[in-house]
Amino acid sequence: MDGKQFVTQIADINDNFAQWYTDVVLKTELVDYGPVKGTMVIRPYGYAIWENIQKDMDARFKAAGSKNAYFPLLIPMSFFTKEAEHVEGFAPEVAVVTHAGGAKLEEPLAIRPTSETVIGTMYAKWIQSYRDLPVIMNQWCNVMRWEKTTRPFLRTSEFLWQEGHTVHASEDEAMEETIKMLNVYKEFFEETLAIPVFTGRKTDKEKFAGAVATFGLEAMMLDGKSLQIGTSHYLGQNFSKAFDIKFLDKDSTQKFGYTTSWGTSTRMIGGIIMAHGDQRGLVLPPKIAPVQVVIVPIAAHKGGVNEKAKELEAQLLAQGIRAEVDTRDMSPGWKFNEWEMKGVPVRIEVGPRDIENNQVVIFRRDNLEKQTASMDNLALSVKGLLDEIQTSLLIKSKANRDGRVCEADSLNGILNGVENKNFVKANWCGCRECEDKVKEFAQATARVIDSDATEGEVCAICGKPAKHKVIFARAY
Amino acid sequence: MDGKQFVTQIADINDNFAQWYTDVVLKTELVDYGPVKGTMVIRPYGYAIWENIQKDMDARFKAAGSKNAYFPLLIPMSFFTKEAEHVEGFAPEVAVVTHAGGAKLEEPLAIRPTSETVIGTMYAKWIQSYRDLPVIMNQWCNVMRWEKTTRPFLRTSEFLWQEGHTVHASEDEAMEETIKMLNVYKEFFEETLAIPVFTGRKTDKEKFAGAVATFGLEAMMLDGKSLQIGTSHYLGQNFSKAFDIKFLDKDSTQKFGYTTSWGTSTRMIGGIIMAHGDQRGLVLPPKIAPVQVVIVPIAAHKGGVNEKAKELEAQLLAQGIRAEVDTRDMSPGWKFNEWEMKGVPVRIEVGPRDIENNQVVIFRRDNLEKQTASMDNLALSVKGLLDEIQTSLLIKSKANRDGRVCEADSLNGILNGVENKNFVKANWCGCRECEDKVKEFAQATARVIDSDATEGEVCAICGKPAKHKVIFARAY
Repeated sequence: MDGKQFVTQIADINDNFAQWYTDVVLKTELVDYGPVKGTMVIRPYGYAIWENIQKDMDARFKAAGSKNAYFPLLIPMSFFTKEAEHVEGFAPEVAVVTHAGGAKLEEPLAIRPTSETVIGTMYAKWIQSYRDLPVIMNQWCNVMRWEKTTRPFLRTSEFLWQEGHTVHASEDEAMEETIKMLNVYKEFFEETLAIPVFTGRKTDKEKFAGAVATFGLEAMMLDGKSLQIGTSHYLGQNFSKAFDIKFLDKDSTQKFGYTTSWGTSTRMIGGIIMAHGDQRGLVLPPKIAPVQVVIVPIAAHKGGVNEKAKELEAQLLAQGIRAEVDTRDMSPGWKFNEWEMKGVPVRIEVGPRDIENNQVVIFRRDNLEKQTASMDNLALSVKGLLDEIQTSLLIKSKANRDGRVCEADSLNGILNGVENKNFVKANWCGCRECEDKVKEFAQATARVIDSDATEGEVCAICGKPAKHKVIFARAY
Repeated sequence: MDGKQFVTQIADINDNFAQWYTDVVLKTELVDYGPVKGTMVIRPYGYAIWENIQKDMDARFKAAGSKNAYFPLLIPMSFFTKEAEHVEGFAPEVAVVTHAGGAKLEEPLAIRPTSETVIGTMYAKWIQSYRDLPVIMNQWCNVMRWEKTTRPFLRTSEFLWQEGHTVHASEDEAMEETIKMLNVYKEFFEETLAIPVFTGRKTDKEKFAGAVATFGLEAMMLDGKSLQIGTSHYLGQNFSKAFDIKFLDKDSTQKFGYTTSWGTSTRMIGGIIMAHGDQRGLVLPPKIAPVQVVIVPIAAHKGGVNEKAKELEAQLLAQGIRAEVDTRDMSPGWKFNEWEMKGVPVRIEVGPRDIENNQVVIFRRDNLEKQTASMDNLALSVKGLLDEIQTSLLIKSKANRDGRVCEADSLNGILNGVENKNFVKANWCGCRECEDKVKEFAQATARVIDSDATEGEVCAICGKPAKHKVIFARAY
């Protein structure tokens, strides 16, 4: 198989973005379809990205005062009914265990779609006094939501995620936590995934079932659609009242706590693919790339080439760079194409002439540029290059996004904007009917509330006085 | 609450070991019962132990050539029937999803009790040629086995574990992998958990449902009972034939692969508790202790004490020691008891007089000894001490175990042995009836086959010629 074939096997990124995505996730062996409809298998190359995400995020959570725990997978169905909006939102999507150990269960059990209810039940048991607050816990786990239309990473019946759940003594403190974690996410997306995000409050239509307020993080994909890549919810006392999370306050009275929850999932991997990829395949940010540097020996049959490649690999590994020599019995061109498709940030080519000249050829996946570098202090220059790539991926994504944000003052304007792959800022009166109209007319939704409207501005849909400026977009 | 109360709240370790265990796991907040019968919630202190275990083990797996992946939770029930022994072993224990997304499913889905079937299905799809072999993958996940009698960590309907699954081109290579991973486990248990294990092949009665041979790792708990703390299975071609895992070999013929699987679970945490604990509570090996060193300020109201404690904490943290100052508004005695119960390996006490003398008091949880140490180079001396504690825990466990291994040449002898909290080595003819008799008469099972019997030796149960020397014990 020559290199050309590799490239042509991936659908055209401009003509058929959806097929391009499917081709890329399958051919790079990030993922495969599981035997049950709507499930995915995360293959080693995809899971290694998840491990790098987890490690980085987990450190940020711990620095923000969170501790990890693990709560049960199965939740009694009756728990969901305790919070009215929550049951309405999630009951239609749950998978239900009715039999176990060879017998019918007395009460059916739901596989968690999210864990507010079971964690709330435990918090009610553990929390007695204001001294026990705040409680800040996170869990990394699998959840299940039975979806009709599924796509690997973006929407699957089972997915991996983290969900943080906190309890606070006051409304202010809980709201502060909600925003704090929103910002922890934002920093992570920008610093580690090189994905810029818009953050803001969601409209009531789009908020989490049971939340007082949901704050979303929305990233623009290459096709101009928005990916909700994380959410942070202020739950007020909705869940504490439903699950009896009370504490004895300093003034000796019993009070209900204020809770929050926040989550991100394997969906982020879909975001990485669709924010940075190109016609050749993946372009991975160095911070989460399973292989940061691949070393390809040229004319490897000549004495000393493989040995030199191995020596360089050892130097890079010693400096904490995830490097790998590809010594397989394939042509360099074949290897170039495969590793480009797999999005490895840096390729180092080393052949007999390079060794003579004490240099290597370095190829950058992000801008496809080649340069030579001295073998002296190679690890140091590669480290610098990886940092540079990481930075420039964010700059590029940001420039791309910022160039595709427009304003509109009519339904037609909103339609035009999203058809041209833009995020559209528009004034909005605040009513559900106008949101529904945008959905129907432009197949777009309010992603986040960007800001309050200025006095005198009017709703782009109905012309009544505007309350907010909203970002509309088509979304995953 | 004074310290004495803490201690007396834990049941007597000699009189009622089962209650001691329950008291310890609950009071140290390792775990709590979940709302659904048989489930557990792993609380932050328990989960932090699990994280330390994962980190250490995962590095060993990767060094042994394994890559992590993630396979679906739900498995079509029909998959289980493909391997006859496997379905017999696991079908009675599975939890079954019959409804999802508001509708009845066409085929019921099992929550994985173990993943040979679904992983085998994917391997069959991915493996084409001998060039694709060996395949060595591991997953960290939750599994579910509906058990009648449950105890936190030891036996719960849902638990966390890792399961490795490999495919090889030959029987020899697969058997080699089985034994290699058995030894990876053994080293981990001894080096990291300070728990010595007996390893060996299981009898047919005790082997994994669907395996050709199971190799077990058996650890002696303080009550003389055995805990199966890990297993490594040689599966031969049983699963490759059932799931069609074939490859084109070098000789251009299609062949079935040879597979293995190996697993350990949150059960290990139960093992740590029951291998090292004492009347005061937990005794945690430094390598997995969430807090390795607690610093307790004495007469903290006096100027400079808390500051000095914080300064020492910073010094220890900088050297990678998991240290924590306890500045809560409680008496030192209360704190001593709590941290002793929680099994923190080293306590450092620092008060005004210590500061004057440029020293601290150091308390070792494992042998309850106090000593003083200079504040100069404290991190270095603490590091040395943690290593010493780690080593001496293993020596102590090993001495305890080795002193409680006896031999028997009759059913009565086996009964006597296990009643006296021993592991009993006895010759065995190899027949199932004799194993059943030991179970009935002595409530003991064959834990592992220790060695082949010598010519002329006879079965301790039936008197016929012996095949093996077996270790019998009561077990969790």
